[in-house]
Amino acid sequence: MKWKGNKMKKILWDEKSYIIDGKREFLRSGEFHYFRVPKKDWKRRLELFKKAGGNCVATYVPWCLHEPEEGKILFGDCDERDVETFFKLCRDAGLYVQCRPGPYVYSELYCHGLPKWLCENYHEILARNAKGEIFQYQSISYLHPKFLAKAAKWFDAVVPIMNRYSLDNGGPIALAQVDNELMGIHEWFGSLDYNRASIGIGVKGGRYPEFLQKSYGSIGILNSAYGTDFADFHKVIPLPDMSQKTVEDRRRIKDYQDFYYLACAEYIATLIAMLRKRGVKLPITHNSGNPSMNSYFHETIDLVGSKEFILGSDHYYNLSQDWDQNNPTPKYAGKCFYSNEMLRLYGFPPTIFELPGGSQAAWPPSLPEDMNCAYMLNVAFGMKGFNYYIYTGGPDNPQNISYKNNYDYNAFVSGDGKIRPTFKVMEKFHDFLIGNKWLAEAGMVSDFHIGLDWEKSRSHHYFSERGDFVYGSNEAWQFVQKGIIMTSLNNSFTPSYSDLYSDGIIKETSKPLFVAASVCMAKHVQERLVKFVKAGGRLIIAPVIPYLDENFNPCMVLSKFLGGVRSEAGTNPRTICPVFKIGDELMRDKYFLFMDIPENAEIIARAVDKDAVVGFKSKLGRGCVIALGYQWHHNYQEHSNVFCSLLRIAGVSEAAVKCDNPNIWAVVRSSGKRSMLFVMNLFASPQKAKISVRGKSGKPLPAKSFNLKPMAVETVSF
Amino acid sequence: MKWKGNKMKKILWDEKSYIIDGKREFLRSGEFHYFRVPKKDWKRRLELFKKAGGNCVATYVPWCLHEPEEGKILFGDCDERDVETFFKLCRDAGLYVQCRPGPYVYSELYCHGLPKWLCENYHEILARNAKGEIFQYQSISYLHPKFLAKAAKWFDAVVPIMNRYSLDNGGPIALAQVDNELMGIHEWFGSLDYNRASIGIGVKGGRYPEFLQKSYGSIGILNSAYGTDFADFHKVIPLPDMSQKTVEDRRRIKDYQDFYYLACAEYIATLIAMLRKRGVKLPITHNSGNPSMNSYFHETIDLVGSKEFILGSDHYYNLSQDWDQNNPTPKYAGKCFYSNEMLRLYGFPPTIFELPGGSQAAWPPSLPEDMNCAYMLNVAFGMKGFNYYIYTGGPDNPQNISYKNNYDYNAFVSGDGKIRPTFKVMEKFHDFLIGNKWLAEAGMVSDFHIGLDWEKSRSHHYFSERGDFVYGSNEAWQFVQKGIIMTSLNNSFTPSYSDLYSDGIIKETSKPLFVAASVCMAKHVQERLVKFVKAGGRLIIAPVIPYLDENFNPCMVLSKFLGGVRSEAGTNPRTICPVFKIGDELMRDKYFLFMDIPENAEIIARAVDKDAVVGFKSKLGRGCVIALGYQWHHNYQEHSNVFCSLLRIAGVSEAAVKCDNPNIWAVVRSSGKRSMLFVMNLFASPQKAKISVRGKSGKPLPAKSFNLKPMAVETVSF
Repeated sequence: MKWKGNKMKKILWDEKSYIIDGKREFLRSGEFHYFRVPKKDWKRRLELFKKAGGNCVATYVPWCLHEPEEGKILFGDCDERDVETFFKLCRDAGLYVQCRPGPYVYSELYCHGLPKWLCENYHEILARNAKGEIFQYQSISYLHPKFLAKAAKWFDAVVPIMNRYSLDNGGPIALAQVDNELMGIHEWFGSLDYNRASIGIGVKGGRYPEFLQKSYGSIGILNSAYGTDFADFHKVIPLPDMSQKTVEDRRRIKDYQDFYYLACAEYIATLIAMLRKRGVKLPITHNSGNPSMNSYFHETIDLVGSKEFILGSDHYYNLSQDWDQNNPTPKYAGKCFYSNEMLRLYGFPPTIFELPGGSQAAWPPSLPEDMNCAYMLNVAFGMKGFNYYIYTGGPDNPQNISYKNNYDYNAFVSGDGKIRPTFKVMEKFHDFLIGNKWLAEAGMVSDFHIGLDWEKSRSHHYFSERGDFVYGSNEAWQFVQKGIIMTSLNNSFTPSYSDLYSDGIIKETSKPLFVAASVCMAKHVQERLVKFVKAGGRLIIAPVIPYLDENFNPCMVLSKFLGGVRSEAGTNPRTICPVFKIGDELMRDKYFLFMDIPENAEIIARAVDKDAVVGFKSKLGRGCVIALGYQWHHNYQEHSNVFCSLLRIAGVSEAAVKCDNPNIWAVVRSSGKRSMLFVMNLFASPQKAKISVRGKSGKPLPAKSFNLKPMAVETVSF
Repeated sequence: MKWKGNKMKKILWDEKSYIIDGKREFLRSGEFHYFRVPKKDWKRRLELFKKAGGNCVATYVPWCLHEPEEGKILFGDCDERDVETFFKLCRDAGLYVQCRPGPYVYSELYCHGLPKWLCENYHEILARNAKGEIFQYQSISYLHPKFLAKAAKWFDAVVPIMNRYSLDNGGPIALAQVDNELMGIHEWFGSLDYNRASIGIGVKGGRYPEFLQKSYGSIGILNSAYGTDFADFHKVIPLPDMSQKTVEDRRRIKDYQDFYYLACAEYIATLIAMLRKRGVKLPITHNSGNPSMNSYFHETIDLVGSKEFILGSDHYYNLSQDWDQNNPTPKYAGKCFYSNEMLRLYGFPPTIFELPGGSQAAWPPSLPEDMNCAYMLNVAFGMKGFNYYIYTGGPDNPQNISYKNNYDYNAFVSGDGKIRPTFKVMEKFHDFLIGNKWLAEAGMVSDFHIGLDWEKSRSHHYFSERGDFVYGSNEAWQFVQKGIIMTSLNNSFTPSYSDLYSDGIIKETSKPLFVAASVCMAKHVQERLVKFVKAGGRLIIAPVIPYLDENFNPCMVLSKFLGGVRSEAGTNPRTICPVFKIGDELMRDKYFLFMDIPENAEIIARAVDKDAVVGFKSKLGRGCVIALGYQWHHNYQEHSNVFCSLLRIAGVSEAAVKCDNPNIWAVVRSSGKRSMLFVMNLFASPQKAKISVRGKSGKPLPAKSFNLKPMAVETVSF
């Protein structure tokens, strides 16, 4: 178990999996705060975790703990600051370490782990809302020079210790994380950050005016885009509120959001550079606060790439009674599905850096069956690495840095060292992963692609309400989540995501591509979709054909390709309850009409009480476009009928998996040689299902009956 | 089974239970739409329901169905309009009927069951938002004279038929309902109603100016209260938005809301009078759209009383994937708890007029275990009557009045007549109720009272945000729901509600009274609490002592009684993470300080990092006041400790029920002679518990071990 010198190999990765100690393998990490767990119990709890199948532990190194007074940086003076001994014990136990020195860590620490003196004495570094007000005394304006200077001093002290215990030097530290859930800390607690000093609002050459200059070139063009009359770029004031009244306002809000994400990317890159400058050669990680924030990191990945950086996400299902659900549900699983897929498309082995190992709240409780279900469904949907938050905590709060005296977290090993029933769940889960190492490189056997337009999933601040537009971008994102994903899994069709920002899609013509479009779609995406169809792709697009680009400027590439087709809202106030017909089914929901459909197009759907076209199929190039002016959130059998009809029209009549119970989800992961069927009952009642796998997209599996307990994920290897 | 003449007795009731055919009994009703179920199957399905233990069916008589063109009123011309045959068959099957002729019925019908010609040709009768806009073509301005005139004509036609088949005349109709979920139809779909013609805004002598005149007496007083300078009452414009900026605005919004509830009361009273005028002698019912709307009917109950009118509520846990949960959860159970208690305090046998017998959505599914759990937990919390929505539906839509062609609703008996697995759940549930008829008059064995301040539960439009006030009314209501109810049930303390608007509380001094107070409390409530304490009552009040009445005018009755004590927010922006101590426990949350506490008060809680008082106990009169400047949403063990400490200080050291698993709720209902323990696992994982009942407040039950499946409610009779 112990190693001397550089016996453990570096952790490598590609979008398929981690490569740990030379082998494709799951990263099985657990959060272990040396500063909370009593030192006398470090060794026992580490060895317990290793024995239970873990291969890594993660810990914050909280700035607030080690620099209690400005300039007084302490390591090793007391048990809870003796991080070096902790690292040695990790190495002795044969566990990698993911080291998370902040500067920002959260972790239910006072000032979210920042030193109290920093937040109290330097108000100028705090994030501000658009009115210039401080909204939380723990939310920092990341790029503020004074904050970065203070953080640099902290790194000066902590990084040499990290280096001493990194893999290269025979230590256990294999991964280094910068910050923690960084954008959540603004959005959740009040606002994006508008701190004028760091953002440079009103400052000639400031970040924000520079961004605008780069985007618009001349102030005249900006004024025309914003409907304003600013004298110069540095005079531009961002529009903070969620006003969605005018197109000009939406543009201005979106610009600030884009700028903010870019500034956060710059912050991450700055932190990485600070680590590199101090000799850190390790891969750098960061965790998105939840699945819906994954897309906020697009600028970050553009800037830092996916070769030395890994973005993961946090997948909680319940942290307090204010959460929607008490247990993993299809809604939770749907989020895990798209989150894992997004991380894969970024180029990473999908990693859940905070997979619930308990909950900060004792109630609602963290129950074993729920936790097992959450873990297994994440594997079914592509998780390749994880870090339990937390594996174990501590019974007290020696330096009074935590606002939880007993940081128990209902974890596998309680604060005072007792093993909870959930410990067995963890062991069993590790046994499963270790017994099925081939799963690490297995991919989803999918029946069709869902086109991922990243912008859609971050449009809720400026385009959740439709306003005067035919259809909004956040509506399209809701349609993907609550319509396409839910309906396909309920009908045992398995989707996988396809990146509309990558030319890769042009080659993926073997399966239909389902795109949920709003009136806005970037020109490069429209062009790529045209190329996809010309190359033989089958494009399903619903519910509208875009006529604007992502910045609300006219862009008819796709429309022109379709001979000038236009979308119109089908909601006429005089038609009180619109109804339209598809196949033999009737339904009522949001529908849209297509005007000027392509010549020779085959009409596949019409409104019942008028002659208008609601769906058509048009052969173009070597491929085809199937357009449907309808969107749904999965509720009824009719939605299944519409969805299956669309896939049938696109040439997919049967799913690879066949399941006779629409409430049971079944997906297959395959490495080519081996396959595994995952069968999920994500409800609180027991259920039955009969499931077979067709040979088409993998190996066949004859029909098998399942009696599924509540919250059960069963697997069949074949 | 059949009866001739008036063989079945009238349905009577008190706040304890229904008295059906002379006996205390549960009302076991199922929704059965004659116009959806094929006529040839009416008899079979009715007999099935009777055989399964039902004693009543409910049906709408939709106006849109029977008056398809204005003035052309049809009954009996075709199967789906043959309501008389349906009533005869109900009588033959031995089933009471609850007849729901609207005028408004909803029920997934076009125009929500109103005639299309009415909504399309008479736009003047539609509800308007504050801007004067129509927000939905199915939402009516209830008191509009033209609407009432049209409804009167509809009643002229339908009521004689109801009368012919009412109990007095040997028919089965025992209950008549007016409208359906009436206030939801405005609030859910856009706005309260501001239709100027019916509301009388801007009209001398109009309803709204009259209301204001009655409230304020002189326009000068109103202007001073509103911070306005209106020339006359009929010049006053209501303030529609949820602005909570100034106290004047809050007052103006609250006034409009109060006026709206009063107008709805007038509407209900008008409909009842219309029925009475046409000879209807039956009790009249109505259903609140959900538990949080129950309190909107306070004005209605004041106006029409509880002797000839029964208000019930609707208790769904899931109708689509947009609902929080897929199955009954503690959150759902908490709502059922307070809903049943509110209905009891109104003076009714708590009745759930829409208890889920399925769901309008096929997905998430209606699973048998979930449904059984929902039914049983409602009985545990006091439900005395119910109507499944729906018992059975229909496979098609003969007159094209429904926007669901197959109104299947996943009901016990499917649209096309098949018996679903849930049917057995219903049968078993009825067997339980019939086998335990004594439960109909059983009451909750409670350990303490929660004071119900009705206004708190309807304050979210004008007082959800605290603003400059120390503590808001909706915050107090959230504290009751997420704090007091949850923490008490988790610690097997059972609360019951006590009506702060009734002098009854003054006599209920045997148990402590827990009041969640905001800065506002009506003078009559403050006075009643003083009387309660003087009479020997033990009052627990948290987290603040009020200093205003319900209209934001100074009112220090309670404060003066406590020697002039004042509350101050304990959140100091310089104190980044406030912590305070109660007993031996530490916690962090919303806390408040008490200034100028009563002389001789015993201090029970202090802030840790300052000398301020956070809790005190003061003996006054023959009773005492225990004040705690803290509110919580139940999350941690600390919350249990605080809560149990408070009850202990108030003299209650042990609950009647003892349960060793905080995640299992256990309550006892008792009729005096007989008792029943209800043990609830409202989670998706199986759980164990050991439970005993102490003899103090009923019979004792020795410790018994339970192995509870997910979503299980087990009972022990003793």
